[in-house]
Amino acid sequence: MSVFQAPSLESLVSELTKLPGVGKKSAMRIAFHLLRSPREEVDSLAAYLVDVKEKIDLCTVCGNYTETEPCELCRDPRRDGRVICVVEQPSDVFLIESTGEFRGRYHVLHGALSPIEGIRPESLRIGELVARLQDGEVQEVILATNPTVEGDATAFYIGETIKERKVSVSRIARGIPMGGALEFSDQLTLARALKGRRGLE
Amino acid sequence: MSVFQAPSLESLVSELTKLPGVGKKSAMRIAFHLLRSPREEVDSLAAYLVDVKEKIDLCTVCGNYTETEPCELCRDPRRDGRVICVVEQPSDVFLIESTGEFRGRYHVLHGALSPIEGIRPESLRIGELVARLQDGEVQEVILATNPTVEGDATAFYIGETIKERKVSVSRIARGIPMGGALEFSDQLTLARALKGRRGLE
Repeated sequence: MSVFQAPSLESLVSELTKLPGVGKKSAMRIAFHLLRSPREEVDSLAAYLVDVKEKIDLCTVCGNYTETEPCELCRDPRRDGRVICVVEQPSDVFLIESTGEFRGRYHVLHGALSPIEGIRPESLRIGELVARLQDGEVQEVILATNPTVEGDATAFYIGETIKERKVSVSRIARGIPMGGALEFSDQLTLARALKGRRGLE
Repeated sequence: MSVFQAPSLESLVSELTKLPGVGKKSAMRIAFHLLRSPREEVDSLAAYLVDVKEKIDLCTVCGNYTETEPCELCRDPRRDGRVICVVEQPSDVFLIESTGEFRGRYHVLHGALSPIEGIRPESLRIGELVARLQDGEVQEVILATNPTVEGDATAFYIGETIKERKVSVSRIARGIPMGGALEFSDQLTLARALKGRRGLE
């Protein structure tokens, strides 16, 4: 017999530890919290989980999560269709949207190139991006993949693929994070920050 | 429209932030993880949630969570029925069980006295504890409520309530945690540790 005295509790805890950022201790806290909660609250959480998988699909244009086709960002006439920001994950769209600084459209690749993990260009939504440049409306592509080996390789690959097109291609800036200190920056970031220096505005 | 571009995603995130230790950022990480996961995994998590509420009830003897009546700990003939350890929450039973140091039985109060929150003796399972002392089998009661104002008050109240009975009543030790340093202990804990000093074994 386990220390839990209840197999269903043990199963729930082990299921919860599969979630990102949830260790054994947090899983137990969550499970005991749910046991104390009214039945309706737990049922409603379960229903929301099922709901999200049922209702949400990928937008066929940008690849972001959406409940409508195409998604609200692709449909919104107030957004600038001449600029596309390319990101690795749908969560990146959310992050950029929450800055309120970008009014163009997005393209979600759903990953980054990684020969080790077998992620090749065909596995990503690069063909779809090229297709979106076809009609000549898009004038600028911002490559906002992560500043990692994979993200850089992906940005480079996309840059090479679309360099024949009449679009300006840029890469988001790398440097010292806002509020960060030189003291706590690694050499690579510091080198990048020096290289990417800009005149005072 | 929200930054999420999907109302069901927004609902799930807000539902997840109700869980203990899950802030907005963790909730989003979990939600995006679930969106990337296969449908079956999410369905199975939802099923485990419903399952736990369906199958688990309180043991009528000790008040711990159980799928059987009475619970496995109350039924286990290898456990010492002469000692009862009184705790506030079912999660405390789990914590004490995981030490492997206690072979008696438990009694879960489901809370601690708190006039401010309106938790009076009648709201706790104190009457049930007194009933368990009726037949004279129990010889020792260990009060393992938390070392907080509420937990201390509860321990004191129970001590007063059962002092007429022929049982020895004790309170778990307070002191410097193992691996802790005097430097990082608060005055109250340090004072308690001095007061609770014991001869070298």
